[in-house]
Amino acid sequence: MSATQEQVLQRLAEIIESRKLANGGDPDKSYVARLFAKGDDAILKKIGEEATETVMAAKDARVSGDHSKVLYECADLWFHSLVMLAQYDLRPQQVLDELARREGLSGLEEKASRSE
Amino acid sequence: MSATQEQVLQRLAEIIESRKLANGGDPDKSYVARLFAKGDDAILKKIGEEATETVMAAKDARVSGDHSKVLYECADLWFHSLVMLAQYDLRPQQVLDELARREGLSGLEEKASRSE
Amino acid sequence: MSATQEQVLQRLAEIIESRKLANGGDPDKSYVARLFAKGDDAILKKIGEEATETVMAAKDARVSGDHSKVLYECADLWFHSLVMLAQYDLRPQQVLDELARREGLSGLEEKASRSE
Amino acid sequence: MSATQEQVLQRLAEIIESRKLANGGDPDKSYVARLFAKGDDAILKKIGEEATETVMAAKDARVSGDHSKVLYECADLWFHSLVMLAQYDLRPQQVLDELARREGLSGLEEKASRSE
Repeated sequence: MSATQEQVLQRLAEIIESRKLANGGDPDKSYVARLFAKGDDAILKKIGEEATETVMAAKDARVSGDHSKVLYECADLWFHSLVMLAQYDLRPQQVLDELARREGLSGLEEKASRSE
Repeated sequence: MSATQEQVLQRLAEIIESRKLANGGDPDKSYVARLFAKGDDAILKKIGEEATETVMAAKDARVSGDHSKVLYECADLWFHSLVMLAQYDLRPQQVLDELARREGLSGLEEKASRSE
Repeated sequence: MSATQEQVLQRLAEIIESRKLANGGDPDKSYVARLFAKGDDAILKKIGEEATETVMAAKDARVSGDHSKVLYECADLWFHSLVMLAQYDLRPQQVLDELARREGLSGLEEKASRSE
Repeated sequence: MSATQEQVLQRLAEIIESRKLANGGDPDKSYVARLFAKGDDAILKKIGEEATETVMAAKDARVSGDHSKVLYECADLWFHSLVMLAQYDLRPQQVLDELARREGLSGLEEKASRSE
């Protein structure tokens, strides 16, 4: 895993940040700036949409045997997660820190005790 | 960003992989092994659930001013995305590669041309 | 369509209403009373869950040729919609009135002018 | 509840049926015909979208005190459920029959025994 690729979430977050209207993002030129211009609900709706598309792609993958569409839709889901994080002034590193914290504290078995 | 944290997605993916039943995962001890034991639909249902919980947390955050629950739910969404990727024999690096490819080819403006 | 069946949404709404804790609903005996005891988020989470399950059932139906699971999941989705309506002191008749209003005003073509 | 309104689901289903391309529906003039022209995934994606919008409207309603948007979004969710049912050659009456069956057999307490 190259350093360049490891940092893709952070680099994407920086590009997304630059698309905020306050940072000069132009809704006429940028899809992300358009989402920021529309606000919370437009961004959150995309989380629901991309989750649904991911589920459909995964169902299709079992029929076609081609799993690449799952990758593509998961990338869309993560990408729009990054837009949401930016909208709430959060950074992907904080999500990774939270994931690492859970693993570090007690491993994934922390989740084993969850009621559901 | 420390090297340890940079690799959190890959490390989590390895732990998740070890929870597959074929790799010795035990549904009685591990939440992830239980998801693998239940199969595709249980895992995909979690994608829909966690997306909904993320949206609810984001709405709550505007009222409370506390954005930490958005982080927590986004971590849950990404975590279950990793379980789904493992279920389809995909790796998080492939999702990052896809995200980097989009950015590298033509930047986020590639998405600017999308109809929606 | 018998009168009995025509009124199924209203009858279900009445039963659901009776499961509210203020109306004597008992979380130990009734699934719906348990949802009411948990509150808004538990009920809204079910909307997201049942929508995801409906989508999965519809994908499965194209493979199996058996559409009955779509019916079952759609019933679950509508049922939990009724629980949500009750939680917000709304009645299914108001949803039907809204649907009739749209059709009566300008027909489904009202929707044809929607941007998306 | 007037007879006219009681039959709104059935009447809507008939209008939706008439929008199928095989029945002369014109994608240039009708939103529903456009959904049919796009096919399964476009219709199922709307189920996920409208569920997410319903959840967001319900969260907003607790802040604003105005529950009317919940009604509107629930109407959208049910409307697109009707389009999905038509796409799978199912009728809303079959969903109502399933709901009545559950209630008639053992009441809502049938659901009380569900594991979740």
